Amino acid sequence: MLVVNCNTDEQVTAGIARTAQAAARTSVVRAVQPTWGPTSAEGYLESYLSAAAVIERVAQERTYDAVVLAGFGEHGREGVRQLASVPVVDITEAAVFTACLLGHRFGVVTTLESTLAGITDTIELIGLAGRSAGVRASGIPVSHAGAVAEGEDPGLEALEREARVLLDAGADVIVLGCAAFGGLDRRLSERLGGVPVVDGVGQAVRMAETLLAAGLSTSKHGPFAPPRAKVWTERTLPLPAKISRPGV
Amino acid sequence: MLVVNCNTDEQVTAGIARTAQAAARTSVVRAVQPTWGPTSAEGYLESYLSAAAVIERVAQERTYDAVVLAGFGEHGREGVRQLASVPVVDITEAAVFTACLLGHRFGVVTTLESTLAGITDTIELIGLAGRSAGVRASGIPVSHAGAVAEGEDPGLEALEREARVLLDAGADVIVLGCAAFGGLDRRLSERLGGVPVVDGVGQAVRMAETLLAAGLSTSKHGPFAPPRAKVWTERTLPLPAKISRPGV
Amino acid sequence: MLVVNCNTDEQVTAGIARTAQAAARTSVVRAVQPTWGPTSAEGYLESYLSAAAVIERVAQERTYDAVVLAGFGEHGREGVRQLASVPVVDITEAAVFTACLLGHRFGVVTTLESTLAGITDTIELIGLAGRSAGVRASGIPVSHAGAVAEGEDPGLEALEREARVLLDAGADVIVLGCAAFGGLDRRLSERLGGVPVVDGVGQAVRMAETLLAAGLSTSKHGPFAPPRAKVWTERTLPLPAKISRPGV
Amino acid sequence: MLVVNCNTDEQVTAGIARTAQAAARTSVVRAVQPTWGPTSAEGYLESYLSAAAVIERVAQERTYDAVVLAGFGEHGREGVRQLASVPVVDITEAAVFTACLLGHRFGVVTTLESTLAGITDTIELIGLAGRSAGVRASGIPVSHAGAVAEGEDPGLEALEREARVLLDAGADVIVLGCAAFGGLDRRLSERLGGVPVVDGVGQAVRMAETLLAAGLSTSKHGPFAPPRAKVWTERTLPLPAKISRPGV
Amino acid sequence: MLVVNCNTDEQVTAGIARTAQAAARTSVVRAVQPTWGPTSAEGYLESYLSAAAVIERVAQERTYDAVVLAGFGEHGREGVRQLASVPVVDITEAAVFTACLLGHRFGVVTTLESTLAGITDTIELIGLAGRSAGVRASGIPVSHAGAVAEGEDPGLEALEREARVLLDAGADVIVLGCAAFGGLDRRLSERLGGVPVVDGVGQAVRMAETLLAAGLSTSKHGPFAPPRAKVWTERTLPLPAKISRPGV
Amino acid sequence: MLVVNCNTDEQVTAGIARTAQAAARTSVVRAVQPTWGPTSAEGYLESYLSAAAVIERVAQERTYDAVVLAGFGEHGREGVRQLASVPVVDITEAAVFTACLLGHRFGVVTTLESTLAGITDTIELIGLAGRSAGVRASGIPVSHAGAVAEGEDPGLEALEREARVLLDAGADVIVLGCAAFGGLDRRLSERLGGVPVVDGVGQAVRMAETLLAAGLSTSKHGPFAPPRAKVWTERTLPLPAKISRPGV
Repeated sequence: MLVVNCNTDEQVTAGIARTAQAAARTSVVRAVQPTWGPTSAEGYLESYLSAAAVIERVAQERTYDAVVLAGFGEHGREGVRQLASVPVVDITEAAVFTACLLGHRFGVVTTLESTLAGITDTIELIGLAGRSAGVRASGIPVSHAGAVAEGEDPGLEALEREARVLLDAGADVIVLGCAAFGGLDRRLSERLGGVPVVDGVGQAVRMAETLLAAGLSTSKHGPFAPPRAKVWTERTLPLPAKISRPGV
Repeated sequence: MLVVNCNTDEQVTAGIARTAQAAARTSVVRAVQPTWGPTSAEGYLESYLSAAAVIERVAQERTYDAVVLAGFGEHGREGVRQLASVPVVDITEAAVFTACLLGHRFGVVTTLESTLAGITDTIELIGLAGRSAGVRASGIPVSHAGAVAEGEDPGLEALEREARVLLDAGADVIVLGCAAFGGLDRRLSERLGGVPVVDGVGQAVRMAETLLAAGLSTSKHGPFAPPRAKVWTERTLPLPAKISRPGV
Repeated sequence: MLVVNCNTDEQVTAGIARTAQAAARTSVVRAVQPTWGPTSAEGYLESYLSAAAVIERVAQERTYDAVVLAGFGEHGREGVRQLASVPVVDITEAAVFTACLLGHRFGVVTTLESTLAGITDTIELIGLAGRSAGVRASGIPVSHAGAVAEGEDPGLEALEREARVLLDAGADVIVLGCAAFGGLDRRLSERLGGVPVVDGVGQAVRMAETLLAAGLSTSKHGPFAPPRAKVWTERTLPLPAKISRPGV
Repeated sequence: MLVVNCNTDEQVTAGIARTAQAAARTSVVRAVQPTWGPTSAEGYLESYLSAAAVIERVAQERTYDAVVLAGFGEHGREGVRQLASVPVVDITEAAVFTACLLGHRFGVVTTLESTLAGITDTIELIGLAGRSAGVRASGIPVSHAGAVAEGEDPGLEALEREARVLLDAGADVIVLGCAAFGGLDRRLSERLGGVPVVDGVGQAVRMAETLLAAGLSTSKHGPFAPPRAKVWTERTLPLPAKISRPGV
Repeated sequence: MLVVNCNTDEQVTAGIARTAQAAARTSVVRAVQPTWGPTSAEGYLESYLSAAAVIERVAQERTYDAVVLAGFGEHGREGVRQLASVPVVDITEAAVFTACLLGHRFGVVTTLESTLAGITDTIELIGLAGRSAGVRASGIPVSHAGAVAEGEDPGLEALEREARVLLDAGADVIVLGCAAFGGLDRRLSERLGGVPVVDGVGQAVRMAETLLAAGLSTSKHGPFAPPRAKVWTERTLPLPAKISRPGV
Repeated sequence: MLVVNCNTDEQVTAGIARTAQAAARTSVVRAVQPTWGPTSAEGYLESYLSAAAVIERVAQERTYDAVVLAGFGEHGREGVRQLASVPVVDITEAAVFTACLLGHRFGVVTTLESTLAGITDTIELIGLAGRSAGVRASGIPVSHAGAVAEGEDPGLEALEREARVLLDAGADVIVLGCAAFGGLDRRLSERLGGVPVVDGVGQAVRMAETLLAAGLSTSKHGPFAPPRAKVWTERTLPLPAKISRPGV
């Protein structure tokens, strides 16, 4: 099973690998990351470039029986579905579907403010905006998420604070809105007195295994049919400085 | 794992048991049926009485680690969630969530016309009406579904006919809208040239196992918290003849 | 006219009877209650069992010209519609339709938190979620509602407090979200400076009379057509202790 | 009770008066029509001018205890609500609320194609678009509706034809989409084998009587509060020829 | 280009004329106002009468190549579209479409509370309710809007205060909800640290020019086709005192 | 003004350049295309890679005062908005906003079936799904669109055929669903008897000019604020063969 981090941060990939492998029952997880792109996807621009890099990354692989896309609320899942002839599960989908099995309304706690609109859009396209009590930012950047997950960062308090706002707004289940929050689900649940907290990475691996067991795969009888063969222009230029060094 | 048929037809229960156990990876399936109620739930009245009977049936059990509700589009799942302290997966939820992982729009093929409104309502409350391309009836009553599933009935053609109407309407995945259609998924998929066909029973069992593996259970911090203790009046009368012998 | 309380509390039934008869112009009200079930329906589990008991109760009756279902936000109305060949009006429907004739947005004030999700679902299926400014709990259990209605309980303040939150959220009409609040409409309206407050019981009786006068009845050309005759299994067991004595 | 036709066709007003008075139980109906405007409102332009004329007409009256607005799908009801301190019921509202008490989905059969968009908008603002199976035109202009209602015109066949299209599309109740169709409800219902057919005029009168009986009136605590006093410019010019003689 | 103020306040018309002409690139703006009606439209009743007066006013004109309707959230635009054979742009449409090109969610700051419901309805019918973060009132009546726009009134603070509430609620663009706020867009944007603020009048003029340049005009193949010729009754009575002198 | 084709087909870029420059009133159009990617974007995978390539292409530019994104229904517009400090108009937005100024419901006629789902998603996120009467494919690939536009291909008949299906479904305006259809708007409109047909390229240029004239630009106070500076990994590998030579 191919698990694809959406960014190029190796530590995030390693964390995702651990969470994914721990969740896998029969699958051997191969966690990879794009060969190019941002170290974290925290907004539309990064998400779109990451989506392309993720699709390319999957296209480099030959033998895998399922794909898990480990970028919460990120773009690209439909493109990977066109590419792959195996089941494809996005952690956003896995997380919100799971949350809907556990409660009446879910709330999402994620990283930075800049990601909220993209996550909201993704939930709207999945179709479950009506089940959402809100999406809130903890202020923890993706780059710190691993440290929070390992207990080296006080960020858990911020997650708890935002989760409680969502519970007050009607949520009875909390979704972790970042692939790098793996492992935080149980600790946050404890702080919330047992409110279920869903980690999309583990659930996506498990749901992909259900599809494999059922012999189900992406439909090739609609928009996820393979693309027609056509001429592609190769890439020759580096990333524009405006993207690769935006702050310089 | 407790798998609850929504009607009192033992053959249907037996078929569900086979499908469920075949899908289970680690669980031992215990398939049960209500002690009272209709031999099939094919409309609102039967669905509501069945819901009560299913809730009562689950309440009679003591040790189970998860509940699968095997009545497609039927009422009652939220009531079982209040009752149980373990994961509860309804086959309608499992089927439509799975379908949304496989395609862009799903269509449901079910039994009789009389069930369409209830299924439509259920999908609306699940929140995924926007992903549905339609719900259509094959004209096969629940009592014949098993025979169709075992190939002794020409009903498969009716399912294919209605599925093709849904594909024309934009569906790229088909959902089997009856627990008793178990086993038909692969045969219908073949007739449809490989369009994925989802059987909710198998997927509900598998999804319930993902929740068990994740240590996740129904939220008790919202409307699925246990009911308060209160006085209940016992039942002493038989079912009114208007219900138990409506045609007589 | 048959008016059916959804619980087995005789005092609630008596209160409903008074409110209903006072509202009836030409009808003789016969207020009944289920022969089994909870003394109050304050959540999904109780609502589903109550729905079955209400359907059974209606099926025991022979001669009535209309049915009013006096359980706010409760399940079962579509089942009674399948059963009855006469007009059926649920107090939730009557209340929200009335509220929409009086203002731009309505808010519902009900009993306990545990009822909010079910009421929200019901309004969504009725189709008027877009006209709702919210549903809020007063903390008054159904068992105290009568005392509040009769002025023996300070609960009216709680109703006013929650109503004001809804007015601030955009409501210009308040709906009483419990059949047992009958009679409180005028007193709460006074406390709110004349904001219309709608009691569903009275309005359901009146609306049922409009249907009778118009010669209109439940459509038998869709999902409310009578169920097919089929085998039903009789009930022989008492309610499971987990339901009838949950706290014991 | 003031019943206001939306056009200046005296025959339509007389027909509405008959239907309304026949439906009234305790009220004396006073049917009026605007002092200016089109002989029929069959599209946006006519509807908006009619709305103003209807509001002015109501403002000319002094003593009435309720207002019924007898223009199906027409504009203006919120304006009358601001003006009046008594209950105001629009026949569109009365018809669709009634239809929702009788079936799962309703369909509207109206006069000309040119009215469809306005009716669709009105149902959307009422909030019940999700309960509608469609709005269809019979091709009968308002000016012929009375003749159809009195059996002097073969138009009933057209109504039946369009109603059957709506039943096939999922409707189980039909709404008559024109105030001048009064009296056709029973005859169309017979032709449709008993499918309920709702006439908004009669039901609006009856619903207004329920509000009177309940002591409920338009909320003055939101957008229907009376307008502030301000300077108005009187009208001195005749209707522009482009409107009053469009075809000349 | 005909720019139509929705009220009879000449100062407002003059302000709109300035804003419109300043925005026009090639058009000569002719700003007019209804010959009758309220000095400001701040609620449903005034809006409906204003709609009729605006339609009549446009019908009095002979040669114009486009119409801009300068009443924010007011009724009538579909009626003018039926009347005119040229492009018609309403400032509400222009403003919200523009806002959606600039940000993810918009918020509207308008005049009085009494206008909120009508604006909300208009945005719902335009179809963009899902992009709105809210509509809020500043408490500034239309009659003061010009003074605020010219800096002679401290009302800008109120606009800023309400805009900030909308930004907190998720808006990243602010729409000025009154035609008379023309010129305030830049000043309010400055106070908000550069958040885009959209003035509908200027944008409606510019958008109308895009339609003229594209050779596009109102569709005459649907509900905006011209009305059929029919008999209209002329107006002979003055406005009822209840409308023209409501406070007297 | 930078106008960005979403594919690498120089002929398509040249056609877009002509259409765009013809529409520009004051702007000098600079039409560019991505330096890498597919020769046409006709589905999710191509759309996502195209989105990245388009964002990169815009990032290579230094001086431009506005951006027009000339890919109908394609991904990426929000990413360009984050990147650019000038107005950004996508032709999908421009086309549907324009269509909503001209009619009550619009229909989209596009190229291949494989693009329908992506276009539908885009319209849903824009927020105007409620105004759409449908999206239909003509069967004309993007590579032939130019020839159709120049009259060398009989494809216009296919466009007319699908447009008529949409008109029958309630559309009164047609939107051309491909940037390469530029110039076809008038010819298709003629064939449809004058139904307005909207070309997004021209309208996007014109709308961008309205924003420039208004001094309005993309909001930097929400999700379109510039990304934070972070480490990006450069691209070193060619496009995977599975993408660049899918048919080989």
